[in-house]
Amino acid sequence: MTASTIPGYRYGDPALPPASIDAAGLADLRAACLLGDDDLAALREAAPIIAPQVEQVLDTWYGFVGSHPFLLASFSTANGPDADYLAAVRARFGQWIRDTLRANFDADWLAYQREIGRRHADGKNATDGVVGAPPVVPFRHVVALVVPIVETMRPFLAKGARDAEHLERMHRAWLKAVVLSVALWAEAYVREGWW
Amino acid sequence: MTASTIPGYRYGDPALPPASIDAAGLADLRAACLLGDDDLAALREAAPIIAPQVEQVLDTWYGFVGSHPFLLASFSTANGPDADYLAAVRARFGQWIRDTLRANFDADWLAYQREIGRRHADGKNATDGVVGAPPVVPFRHVVALVVPIVETMRPFLAKGARDAEHLERMHRAWLKAVVLSVALWAEAYVREGWW
Repeated sequence: MTASTIPGYRYGDPALPPASIDAAGLADLRAACLLGDDDLAALREAAPIIAPQVEQVLDTWYGFVGSHPFLLASFSTANGPDADYLAAVRARFGQWIRDTLRANFDADWLAYQREIGRRHADGKNATDGVVGAPPVVPFRHVVALVVPIVETMRPFLAKGARDAEHLERMHRAWLKAVVLSVALWAEAYVREGWW
Repeated sequence: MTASTIPGYRYGDPALPPASIDAAGLADLRAACLLGDDDLAALREAAPIIAPQVEQVLDTWYGFVGSHPFLLASFSTANGPDADYLAAVRARFGQWIRDTLRANFDADWLAYQREIGRRHADGKNATDGVVGAPPVVPFRHVVALVVPIVETMRPFLAKGARDAEHLERMHRAWLKAVVLSVALWAEAYVREGWW
């Protein structure tokens, strides 16, 4: 599936509301999470390593979610886990990996991160036309999932790393990019003016 | 300065509101961030390594905050950075390091994490009687600071690690504990029912 055919994928859609922070605000946020240009380079080096493994990465993450009822609940209705919902989110989640590794953190990217956050909060379910699933993903779980999303990437990066130093550099850049993403997604959850 | 003489330190104070999650909720949150009993053991092994270095860790973190005006702003009034405010927070921040490494994540600890979160949001400034500083620490910065708080700990852990594997084990446990803390602190920022 190419990005343009993923249902609900809206990176670059000019109809999206713009981000609440401008380039200077993003520069500050990048500084706060130590995400330097060397990290962007490391992410881009990781991109072709991960590209052929995206489905396996998603298998790992979905296996994790599926094995924890309190996580699977976000994708479930009274009839149990919603396979269509899980599949729709999965396609966008895979594209999020690719986009994050492309490391083109511009205004379009910022606007789409805001939209991704919204879809975990008051915009949850609507994109995929799901009825009866919980109305939000609890934010404490969004934050906590930074750890498995970071930790489980390491063996996939290791398959294409030149050496231990290269692996470490890519993995640390991935940690920073995931933390940056969650910091941006948080906007949809946080009280007015406190984000 | 011992814990009992740190102004505003309230870990264990029965007058604090209890946490919003119970032991089962904490178990879920620990599972979401992969914080196992082996990690608690690793944190406790790190405790005596870090204990004699807490002031140097804080020097590093304060140096980082002090070198970024958008971070220092949270501790500043119209008269510039408030040295008393910085010092009061510093004493509690050092104790937070010690408490986190003690890894006794019980109901008292949960209640105090909730209070720590509140002091970054609508309870900011009041504990230290500060007037004129910004009313909240922007939440996106709280999330982003996970990275420096994790990365800068590594050389301090390295000073007492038995070997590379021991260092890695302690450092990963620290990452998980910091993410857990931020997930808990988030409650004060998040809209009703979405945390």
